[in-house]
Order: sequence, then C-alpha cells, then structure tokens
Amino acid sequence: MHDVPLTRALDEWERCRQLAGCPARVPAVTLPLDQAVGRVTAEPVWATRSSPPFDSAAMDGIAVRAADTRGASETTPLLLPADRFAVVDTGDPLPGDCDAVVMREHVHYVDGQAELRAGVAPYEHVRSIGEDISATELLLPAAHRLRAVDVAAAAAAGAIEIVVRRPPVVAILPTGDEMRPVGSELAPGELMDTNSLMLAAQARAAGCDVITLGIEPDDPERIAAAIRGAIERCDLLIVVAGSSAGRDDYTAQLVARLGSLAVHGVAVRPGHPVVLGAIDSTPVIGCPGYPVSSSLTFDIFAVPLLADLEGVLPIPRAQTRARLARKVVSVIGSDDWVRVRLGRVAGSLVASPLPRGAGVLTSLVRADGLLVIPSELEGHHAGEEVDISLLRSIPEVEGTIVAIGSHDPILDLAASELRVRDPRVTLASSNVGSLGGLIALRDGLCHLAGSHLLEPETGEYNIPYIERMLPDRDIAIIRLVHRDQGLIVAPGNPHGLTGIADLARGELRYVNRQRGAGTRVLLDYELQRVGIDPAGIVGYAREEPTHLAVAAAVASGRADCGMGVRAAARAFGLDFVPIAQEPYDLIMERATAESAALQPLWELMETPGFRTAVEALGGYDTSQMGDRIR
Amino acid sequence: MHDVPLTRALDEWERCRQLAGCPARVPAVTLPLDQAVGRVTAEPVWATRSSPPFDSAAMDGIAVRAADTRGASETTPLLLPADRFAVVDTGDPLPGDCDAVVMREHVHYVDGQAELRAGVAPYEHVRSIGEDISATELLLPAAHRLRAVDVAAAAAAGAIEIVVRRPPVVAILPTGDEMRPVGSELAPGELMDTNSLMLAAQARAAGCDVITLGIEPDDPERIAAAIRGAIERCDLLIVVAGSSAGRDDYTAQLVARLGSLAVHGVAVRPGHPVVLGAIDSTPVIGCPGYPVSSSLTFDIFAVPLLADLEGVLPIPRAQTRARLARKVVSVIGSDDWVRVRLGRVAGSLVASPLPRGAGVLTSLVRADGLLVIPSELEGHHAGEEVDISLLRSIPEVEGTIVAIGSHDPILDLAASELRVRDPRVTLASSNVGSLGGLIALRDGLCHLAGSHLLEPETGEYNIPYIERMLPDRDIAIIRLVHRDQGLIVAPGNPHGLTGIADLARGELRYVNRQRGAGTRVLLDYELQRVGIDPAGIVGYAREEPTHLAVAAAVASGRADCGMGVRAAARAFGLDFVPIAQEPYDLIMERATAESAALQPLWELMETPGFRTAVEALGGYDTSQMGDRIR
Repeated sequence: MHDVPLTRALDEWERCRQLAGCPARVPAVTLPLDQAVGRVTAEPVWATRSSPPFDSAAMDGIAVRAADTRGASETTPLLLPADRFAVVDTGDPLPGDCDAVVMREHVHYVDGQAELRAGVAPYEHVRSIGEDISATELLLPAAHRLRAVDVAAAAAAGAIEIVVRRPPVVAILPTGDEMRPVGSELAPGELMDTNSLMLAAQARAAGCDVITLGIEPDDPERIAAAIRGAIERCDLLIVVAGSSAGRDDYTAQLVARLGSLAVHGVAVRPGHPVVLGAIDSTPVIGCPGYPVSSSLTFDIFAVPLLADLEGVLPIPRAQTRARLARKVVSVIGSDDWVRVRLGRVAGSLVASPLPRGAGVLTSLVRADGLLVIPSELEGHHAGEEVDISLLRSIPEVEGTIVAIGSHDPILDLAASELRVRDPRVTLASSNVGSLGGLIALRDGLCHLAGSHLLEPETGEYNIPYIERMLPDRDIAIIRLVHRDQGLIVAPGNPHGLTGIADLARGELRYVNRQRGAGTRVLLDYELQRVGIDPAGIVGYAREEPTHLAVAAAVASGRADCGMGVRAAARAFGLDFVPIAQEPYDLIMERATAESAALQPLWELMETPGFRTAVEALGGYDTSQMGDRIR
Repeated sequence: MHDVPLTRALDEWERCRQLAGCPARVPAVTLPLDQAVGRVTAEPVWATRSSPPFDSAAMDGIAVRAADTRGASETTPLLLPADRFAVVDTGDPLPGDCDAVVMREHVHYVDGQAELRAGVAPYEHVRSIGEDISATELLLPAAHRLRAVDVAAAAAAGAIEIVVRRPPVVAILPTGDEMRPVGSELAPGELMDTNSLMLAAQARAAGCDVITLGIEPDDPERIAAAIRGAIERCDLLIVVAGSSAGRDDYTAQLVARLGSLAVHGVAVRPGHPVVLGAIDSTPVIGCPGYPVSSSLTFDIFAVPLLADLEGVLPIPRAQTRARLARKVVSVIGSDDWVRVRLGRVAGSLVASPLPRGAGVLTSLVRADGLLVIPSELEGHHAGEEVDISLLRSIPEVEGTIVAIGSHDPILDLAASELRVRDPRVTLASSNVGSLGGLIALRDGLCHLAGSHLLEPETGEYNIPYIERMLPDRDIAIIRLVHRDQGLIVAPGNPHGLTGIADLARGELRYVNRQRGAGTRVLLDYELQRVGIDPAGIVGYAREEPTHLAVAAAVASGRADCGMGVRAAARAFGLDFVPIAQEPYDLIMERATAESAALQPLWELMETPGFRTAVEALGGYDTSQMGDRIR
C-alpha cells in the first residue's frame, strides 16, 4: 500500500467509476411541492401561469380609467360618477377596462361620486399581470437545490409538483470482531460501533437516505456476502473497518475481488488507509476505523460524490483567516487536516491546534475549524496567518472565552453553566499545563490562563513566574479556588500509601502529568524534598494531559497511583492521599479582566449555586473565589 | 399604524412575551442518539465511560514490557521468549502488564522468539485509556446543536440517549377570501396560498415542526376561533394575511382582543405591516401577504425567536463585500432589504439590485444576497462597496456569467442548458434593455450585454452605439441570432392588424417596452417612419420589462397588441404580425470573450441540439450563431 496524493486519488476513483458504469446522477422522481424542498431539480421549471395572474391594484383606493381623470387638479376637481370607478383593496383584480388606481388618501366622496384633485397616468398603482413572472419564462434551472422561496414561486407560476433527483442512498457496513452496536454492554476488549452512527448522521446531513447494515465479524466471506447484498440497494457503499490495519486490507482485497479497486491509501492525515473502488456499478469507500479518519474520509470523498450524484456542488464551508497559536509540524507528502479552536484575542482571530490523533474524536467535537496543511509544506510557524475552514460560525467563535493552561474540572463546570445562562458564551479550555498557559498568555493567544505554579525556593505561587515571563505586562490574578492535591489511588488504598515517600518503593506503577503542568512541578518539588530520584519511579514517563486522565488510568487498574486533585479521584470513586493544598488562579491582562467578554465568568463566580457545585466536586475551598490577588 | 424601528419592535415584542408568560425555552425530551442529531442539548453531556476504554495498541506489532527491552540495540539484539510478548493489531487492548508496543516493522521472529534491535520506552505506541475522553469529563455543554461527531463521541463516552429540546412547533394560519390552496384551479380574482407553503418550508429549515391550518375567510370571528384552537398546540403562531391592507388590520385587532398586541408596523421594507404580540403564553406574528414581505418577516422575527426557544443562536448568513452595480435609493426611516445578484466581473464582486416590489418573489428566488440599507441612509451610489448577506455560496457566485441588457427567451434556454451540463455554471440575466446593458458593460458590471440597437440614420445595429459609448475599449461582438420582431396580437388577429400603420387607429390598447429597450427603439423608428405620434397611442405609457410580459398582457386580454419577438407570441399561443428581422448580438470585452468563464456558453452555441431548440421557439435564424461580428 502506497499513499496516493488526494487529487490523483479522486481522479483514479472517478475513472474507475466510469469504467464500472456507475451512473452520473441518481434517477429523477416527481414530488409534490412541499416534499420537494431540499431536493435538486432534475429538469428546469418553466412558468405555466403568470404571477400575478391578472392586473391588480397595488394600493387600496379606487380603480379608474386614467383617461377619465385627465384635467383633474386642486383648482378644478373632477367628480367621477359611481359607474366610472370601483373601490379596490391592494391585490384585487382591476375591474373591466380600468387601467389605473387612485390611492384611498386622494379620494373624497361627494354624494356617491368620487372627487379627484389630480389625474392619474395609465397603469399608475397597478401591478401588471406577470410582474413577478410571466408564463413560459424560466423560473428555475435544472440542478438547483430547492429552497422555501423556490417552491412558493413555482406554485405561483403554476407548478403543483416538481421533477427532482431522489435522495442518494448510502449503505453503511460496519465490520470487526470486537465491534458492538451502540448501547451494548461491552466486555473487555470490545468497542462501540460509533462510526456507523456518525457516518449515517453525516450522510443524512448531506441529504441522503441511509441503510445501516449489521456488524460483520472479520470474516472475508461474510463481509463479501454482505457487500453483495448491499450493492444493489444503494448509490454508495461505505465499508467501515475496525481499528486494525489488517481489516483495512480485507476491504481492499474484497473490493478488488468483487469489483475494481481504484485506490488503497491516500496521502491525507488523518485518514490515509482509505479504500476507493466500485463494485458492479456502485461506488465503494472503505473507511478507516479511527473515528476522526472516518469522519474526514466521508467529508473528503463521499460528500463531493453525493453532491455530484444530485448534480450540484457540495455546500462549501465558510473560510476565515486566523493567527496560529503555536507551531504545527506536518509530514511532507501528506495533506494534513488539523483541527483548531478559534477565539478572538486582543482583536485578532487565534487558532489553537487540537490533539491530532486519528482516535481523538473530541478534537473534532471541540474544533471550530479545520486547517489543511498541503503535502508540500512542513508545517506553519507560531503566529503565522493561515486559512481556516469554519465548523462553527464566526458569531459563535466571537463569544468564546479562550482559556489555555492548567486543567481543573471546575473549568468544565463553568463552561457548562456559562452556556446555559447565555447561548452566546463558550468557555474553551485547552489543557497544556500552567507553564504552557503563561506562554500562550505572553504570546497573546488566550484570554486567560489557569495556573498553579509553585516556586520551590519561596513556596510562592504564580507571581514569581509572571514576573519572570511577563515582566512588562499589566497582569491581573483572580483566585479561583484552593484545592487539595494528592495521590489518586485505587479504592481502599490497597498499597497503603501515606505520602510521597512511598513512591520510592519500586513495585508501584505511577502515572504522571506532562512537563510544564503545575502538578508535575509539585510532584518534582515533593520528590526532591524527600530525596527520591524520578528515574526510579516506574511509569514516571507515562504522561497524561489532565487530572481525569490520570484518575482514569488508576481506575482501569493499569496504574497504581498518580498525582492529581481530589475532585478527579472522587469523580472516579477512587481513594485519595492528600499531599498539599494549593491555590489555583486565573491569570490575564488587566484589560481582559475588565472587558465585557469576561463579565459572564465573574458573574458566575459570584453565584452561590456555582460555589456549592464546585465544593460538591470535592477538595475545593471556594472562600477566595473571585478575589483579585493582583 | 405607525412604523416602529426594528430594534424597538424586537424589544417591545420581547417585553410583551415576558408579560404574557411565554416560556423562554421549549421543553426537554430524551432521545436516542441517532434521533438527537440536529437537536439542541438541554443538559450538558458528561462522559460516563472513558474512550478508549482501555490502554490499547496504537500500531500493529507486539505488546511488551518496556523494561524487558532495555539494552536492545543493532549490535546487541535481544530475544524475547514467546511468553514475554503478544502480537497485537492497532486498537487491541494491551494484554496483562505490557506497557509498550514494538512496531511490526521492527520485529523479526527467530524460532518463535521476537528479536528486537532497539528498546522501547514505557507507553511508546500506546493509546492510553481516556486519550479521547475521560469518564466524568464534560463532553458537550448544554445549548449545543448536535452534529454527527457529537453523537458519536457521546456514544463512545457512554451515552445511549441525550436530553435535548424538542423541536419548536410553528402553526401557520392563512386567511383571505380570495385565497385558495396550492394546486387549486383558480377562478378569476383568486390567488394561490403560496405563503403557507413557503413559511412551512422556512420553519422546517429552521428545525421546527409545522402545523398548517386551513385557509380562513376574512371573517374576524372565524379567524379568532382558529387562533384560539391553534394557540395551545404551538410555540409560535403565524397568521398570514391576504394581500389586502384591510386584512392586516384584522390580525392586529384580533391579537389585541385575544391577548396583547406589542407592535403593528415595523420600519422594515418590504414587510412593514407586520404584527407582533402574544396570546395566552404563545407568541404571535401577523405576516404581511406579499410573498417577499412574508419571507423576510419570518427571517427577521421568527428565526431569532425559534433559535432562542431552543437556547442557541440562529445560524448566521455568510457575509461578503461587493461593488454596487447601480444606484439604490432608500426611504429614510425604514431599513430596506434589497435583493441582489452577484457575479465576479473583472476581478471584483458586483451586486446588481433586483426588482424591489414586495410582490416580486422571483427577486428572492434569483437573489444571491441581501443588502440591508439602514433607516438613516438615503441609499448608495453606483460603484459603492457594500456589505452583502449571502443567500448562495461564493463558489456558486464565482461560476456565474452575468448578462445585463436586452431580454430574449434564448437566454433562459441557455441558462437552463448550461446548468445541466455543468452544475458550476449559472447564466444570470438582468433585463434592463439594450442601452442599459451597454452602460453596465461600460461600467464593468457585467460579462456581456445582449443588444439589438438600431441606428435609425444608417440602419446599422449595435456598432454605432458601441463606438459612441465604449470608444476606447476592445469590444467583441458575437452574433446570437437573427429574430423576427412584430406585433403580438390575440389569436386570430381579431383587430386585423397588418403593420405599424394600424397603431394610428385610436381604439387599440398597446403595451410597450421600457425606455432604452431595443424593441422600444425599433417601435419609435417604425412610428417615425410612417409618421405616427406616440402620444396618440393608448397604452404607449404602459411599460413591461420583457417580451414575455408583453405577451402575457396581450394574452390576458388587457392589451390588444405590443411589439415583441415571435417566440414570445408563440409561447403564449398568440398571433404575430411581422414587422422586421433584426440581429441580436452579445457584446463584451474581447478579453472576456476569450476567458475560461465564457467557454461553456460558446460550446453550447456550437451544439446542433441547442440550435434546433432555439429554432423551435419560433422566429429565429441561427445560421450565424456564434459568429464573431467584431
């Protein structure tokens, strides 16, 4: 398998589909107007009636013959007898041989006669027949996706049904021994088939009908039979592999055996082990099992094909420009699809790259946009301006408070509460550790940084770091909480840990936080204080990005302990050996602290209900919440 | 009724709804994941499982204990016995106490033992439990509209159903004595109720469920009863007036009587006679009957309310900047919503205002964007750069060939054929007459101008005008056709017309084309030639913008004759008295003629099928079609 560049892959797949006789368009069907909305016209729509269907009054007033009004003026008013005019409302047809309307405001009635003080020109205040559309005129071309106004105009122009393309049908075939339907209880080693759910929803969002087939185990004959059964019933078949590379190969082999294989492996990351081909006259995509790959494969390969089957262009994503929050490295030879969060910081739009693993679906959930790094580039520098395809709208992005720094579960709670109070507010946290947060703040990439950095020499938190890293800046510090840090251990503390000194025991498997995390600084400080060499701790090299990930590792039984906050231990029902109480602060420019954008956060922190909710997480002292430390 | 500024109208309506006790949000319901897509979360979604749920292999290879591999190197390979490693595929759980994976490519097997030539670090090529999301972490906030990736991530994080807002229910109540359901045979004076169809489709596009009620006649008691019956069953009631102003008043009076009236008349054009209020605890909108007003009323008032009921922001339209093709005048005191066509001409985006009547629904069908002129402005100059809200995407706009000038039915035919051949191509014609087209060409506002301007002194077409109006430009002229011009008359030619001279008869009702139209120039030339004074022709002042509109007026019996092309007469089954044969040409910059954008049109003109279709319209000679005249 050798990865093919994207444009070549698309070309080769198209050639393959042509050779296989895949239809260029889905068939046409005739639908009533109200059901045709959202579908694509298969034929042009010509007007068969004029709209309006008659000359009509454009104002409330009286319909007259313009010739009869000639000579009327302020000084020589003219009286029209009752049989020479008719009262009309806007929209009424012009009666008889009337050819103009006098506005209600300009008519006085005298003994049943209409007194006019000005003449009118022929066709004044008249909507002509066909003003909107004339019969036989083209109303809508073929290959047009119908909107509400289109069907209403078609109705006015005489249509009662429209010939449209029927929705393309997408069949989804999940495979994999360890795959279980969404909602199943999972045995160890089993995985939920979330890809079928996602791909079906993506296909529906693209205007398609969906057939989701049952999960087939890793048995080529059974998969082949399922493919054969599906191929007749759909316009596109997507075979979803489990996460193993071995299974991707099954799909390629089967497509080659049952039909023709155009491409196996495209130089796109994530997503490269994609399979493209055709069986009988139906296009087939083999989707990689990693969820981000799977989703992007649909976007890149299925969406344009499905639009083409309807005869239209895919709806493009809006674009914007943004400044890159940090350096992004990319492998030459592959287009790289990087998910980014966006926020407006100090007037400019900033894009923070999210985790890039093909398995990190939350990177797509949290993404505001996509940055595509073409195959010939090695990446981008921090601060470089780049093109972003938007996944959320700019107004939503504008209301985002960008927090980069240390992780604390309170930030999750605040994000949720802020949104409930005001749909315009998003609190987006990137967990890069306290030090990373201060660097982001220095570089103007975030509104605020959560931080709990201990200066070992003085025992002071945060301020020494700020003075070193942000010497010339007017920085505010808002206290969020004091919190308990300690060792997160299995329920019942089976290894009987009592403090840091126990980490010297060789048999314990530790799970660590990443470099630059305040918790890592605290650990190293505590280790040094009791004289333990980190090199002797099993698992010291295993780095997790959040307290909750540390707790999850302990909960799974694959680590015996890790440093973290009490709230994380409690969230997983684990035990906790306290080591220290520390402040956790929000650091930002003074101007940011006072800006309107941050006010919802300060208001939230004043809410008693929020403080109670924070304390309920466990191990938090909220008595100083919201205090200005500096 | 005094029109209220938009922001005040929105404020007063909001206050009215609060006083009436209208709910802030629609109720929450619990839906299975696949049905929750497109809905808005009513509660945050917290992870209850970690994803991945176990430490797993990130590569195909063997799972090992990293400590066992220490010391392996090219010079000192290390042999792992079979019980110290396990073969794993990507995604497989790490067995037992293994903590790292060696890639398949780096393993050689020797007698069932694995030979390694390099050590691995702990957790190398391992996806940690919770790498995607850790249990107890916030996955999605409340008030988030769910997409495919969101529900897939929720499934991976342990959710099987999600608490979302149920769709808002919009009830639509059409009223009006003359209104008939779409698809009815219409008696004279009756109108099709296209507004209900349109508003229902708009509500569905906004994610709502819709109840469309039967049409009520203009009887306040019946309408009141229908309102009372609907109000309990919906979250928003829209009462649609017929087109008469009298009926709008009913709605306002009824809202005041049955509940509370907040606003009657908003300073927005088109659309100003809107009614806003609440009955019991249900918001009510009274929609004007003109279709453009009706559609914009929904956009301006219903869409934000419905989004708010779900707790989210409405999806905003993308914005762009464009140069205005011609002057737009606006009345001070009203926000003016002007529909525009867009096209890229000579590198810059050009916006051409469409007809502004509230009854011209095709102006919305054909619009690529909306220009909002705020109430304090008198309008914009030609050439001014303005903000446009997009109704079509920029890639669709980029593929548009902008034709401004004389109207000919062939342009409709070409527009339809071009789209069928390539969904990226749109031919957008604005019918402003030949002279208007040459002015637009001079000002760089169109790609090409259809023209058939006769110079009476020389009998020459187009070239004298081009030399006068575009003296320094490198202009190409492409012949489209020769066509028959003449008098369009009722079937059987009841007035026995034989030529222009007959227009001197006083009793004929004429229907004319607008000033600057080539057909008007031709008429005036012919009148002059036979010595007829236009002032003596009844209906000379009645101006229609297209041949088809002229034919429609004759077909309706409200005019006896009008000058136009034979194809228009044939389209309406009318008779035709030939007057002249004239060339109809496409005029453009030489560079435009040779540009890639125009090639699809030139290719179409070479197609025999297209020429046959043109000749079938009647009165066309295509023998010079596509010839370069200059």
